Amino acid sequence: MSTIEFNITQRSEKSRARLGVLRTPHGEIETPALVTVATRGTVRAVTLEQAITAGSQLLICNTYHLHLRPGEEVVGEAGGLHKFIGWDRPLMTDSGGFQVFSLGFGRDYNLGKIGPTDASGQVKAGQRPKMLKIDDAGVRFTSFIDGRELFIGPEESMRIQSLLGADIAFAFDECTPPNADREYTESSVAQTHRWADRCLEARDPKQALYGIVQGGKFVDLRRESAQFIAGRLFDGFGIGGEFGEDKDTMSEMLRTVVDELPENRPRHLLGIGHPDDIELIIREGVDTFDCTVPTQYARHGTAFTSAGRVSISASSNLRRHGPLDPTCDCPTCITNSLSYICHLYRAKETAAAILLTVHNLHYFNRLVEDVRDRIRSGSI
Amino acid sequence: MSTIEFNITQRSEKSRARLGVLRTPHGEIETPALVTVATRGTVRAVTLEQAITAGSQLLICNTYHLHLRPGEEVVGEAGGLHKFIGWDRPLMTDSGGFQVFSLGFGRDYNLGKIGPTDASGQVKAGQRPKMLKIDDAGVRFTSFIDGRELFIGPEESMRIQSLLGADIAFAFDECTPPNADREYTESSVAQTHRWADRCLEARDPKQALYGIVQGGKFVDLRRESAQFIAGRLFDGFGIGGEFGEDKDTMSEMLRTVVDELPENRPRHLLGIGHPDDIELIIREGVDTFDCTVPTQYARHGTAFTSAGRVSISASSNLRRHGPLDPTCDCPTCITNSLSYICHLYRAKETAAAILLTVHNLHYFNRLVEDVRDRIRSGSI
Repeated sequence: MSTIEFNITQRSEKSRARLGVLRTPHGEIETPALVTVATRGTVRAVTLEQAITAGSQLLICNTYHLHLRPGEEVVGEAGGLHKFIGWDRPLMTDSGGFQVFSLGFGRDYNLGKIGPTDASGQVKAGQRPKMLKIDDAGVRFTSFIDGRELFIGPEESMRIQSLLGADIAFAFDECTPPNADREYTESSVAQTHRWADRCLEARDPKQALYGIVQGGKFVDLRRESAQFIAGRLFDGFGIGGEFGEDKDTMSEMLRTVVDELPENRPRHLLGIGHPDDIELIIREGVDTFDCTVPTQYARHGTAFTSAGRVSISASSNLRRHGPLDPTCDCPTCITNSLSYICHLYRAKETAAAILLTVHNLHYFNRLVEDVRDRIRSGSI
Repeated sequence: MSTIEFNITQRSEKSRARLGVLRTPHGEIETPALVTVATRGTVRAVTLEQAITAGSQLLICNTYHLHLRPGEEVVGEAGGLHKFIGWDRPLMTDSGGFQVFSLGFGRDYNLGKIGPTDASGQVKAGQRPKMLKIDDAGVRFTSFIDGRELFIGPEESMRIQSLLGADIAFAFDECTPPNADREYTESSVAQTHRWADRCLEARDPKQALYGIVQGGKFVDLRRESAQFIAGRLFDGFGIGGEFGEDKDTMSEMLRTVVDELPENRPRHLLGIGHPDDIELIIREGVDTFDCTVPTQYARHGTAFTSAGRVSISASSNLRRHGPLDPTCDCPTCITNSLSYICHLYRAKETAAAILLTVHNLHYFNRLVEDVRDRIRSGSI
């Protein structure tokens, strides 16, 4: 029996979207939901208290980062991640698979999931990233903190995630780089599938475990991967990797994957959720998704508002004495003017990052809430 | 008639300490009180909301810094500093005089009010700092932001502070460097006195104005300055500058000054308030004081606790799963473990600075509250 319970409360007649409630040992999540990124056990630039005031329902922390620092033994000693970080609500841990990508080919080719890349070459079968060694056992890499040789494989990821003790863990996968060719992607997907089975063997039955679908930009590999993972006894499903260049391709890819997944189990889209994408991915049947956009953009001075993006540092903002977003009821917009936040940002005061992070998280959470309302009323 | 009202509710029989209530147009302050430093219109590393949860009753902002950025016109346009920063409680503005010191001889001699200095030379009469020009009109200096030539004199400081519109403004003074010789200090005190009279001429009657006593480390100059400033129609009194090397000297200096000041008007000690000094300065009759120690130490990873100072980054703290200070009821200590804060600090997460700043401010505010309690019960 699963430690989580997922109830679909309403299905859209216009799309694959659905409303649901995901019950975990640490409380319920209304889905669709944004999962707030808390890589190292905190949401960057704010306290967890502040993330709650911004409407965050659940967090996703990172196994790779917490393994490096402070180490899962410290977290285990504290009684698990919930106790360690002081968060008594639902919690996920990512498996560390994405770091295999970002420290590997991601670094070699200067690739990122956000922003422009200057990649030109293709990653071909047999090619190996420079910073780490991937083989069937797992991934061997060097700690960027102290140069230690480290290793994470499926069994190790399960062991670490069990000590972290989040409500939902993810299977260890290889997240293929966007520029991987077909042959590379095929063998990488096969690797991810072998690891998925070994994760199921090694899993902690006290946690829910999501399997991860890969397959890069190849529709048939996506379908094959979804079929494979769907056939295993996972409590839910993650969808990882890149989905191609444009929104139509992303929709098609998601549809291909979602069509293969069991209807009654939750689906999580890993690392995607620009404001423009949110409605689209929910229409394709995604229940939860995590994304660094709200927090990362906040720290770099970009606010998302009902009137579009606002670049905070512009000196013209110093004369705007009303709120950043007059339609917003977040703690930032209730108390502070755009002028003041602009001043704080230009004066390099931490408060600017705090106020913008709270606002952006609230904005994203409200956006998803609005989509939930529109599913409820039958317009999505 | 003054815009503030100061009522002494109890006088100690054992010392010069007194309990009081300082009424301002934006609410009351229980004195003795720590004034939280908000140089650029915010408390560094936190939001003003968080400063309130840490027990801050009133803030002191800096005229010099706000003049440079965002400029008093912007603040005036917003309806004054209270509205601009979203703080509906008592507020002070420092006059900018301390910056004359820190940008002048402070920079030339690498002097600071906190921490070690490597100053050797003495500042002598006739000598002038390199970074700015002081004469009877005021101080001419270069903006560190954009190289603009700027000027602040007593009239200009009053004009800026009027636009900022804090409840309490300070007269523009020259804060003498700790290594000033007698002759230099004499002429500097005379300058401060001439400026004090010009501030009274130029003041905004809608604000309270505190005159500032200087005199460096020379007891007779301190007395002379206190007599001069006490004889003017200021609503309260600031005591500025350095007080010598040790606590006995500081006590003697404060006693000399306080003896000359009218009993029924409030006294503010500028820029002093190490935990070790707090009881001492209150015993000598200080009502309010501001100090960057709680916030500055927090950002550099030092917490003040009932068991002494804690250096957060020590890796041994990673295994301390209880609160930073088990006797503390601040928001940080209620929710977070020392281990977690240590992890956040080592991972360079902003949340570490936030949590430590809230704790340190709360610790200092509680320390002062405790002194108030001990005055009330007759033990101080």
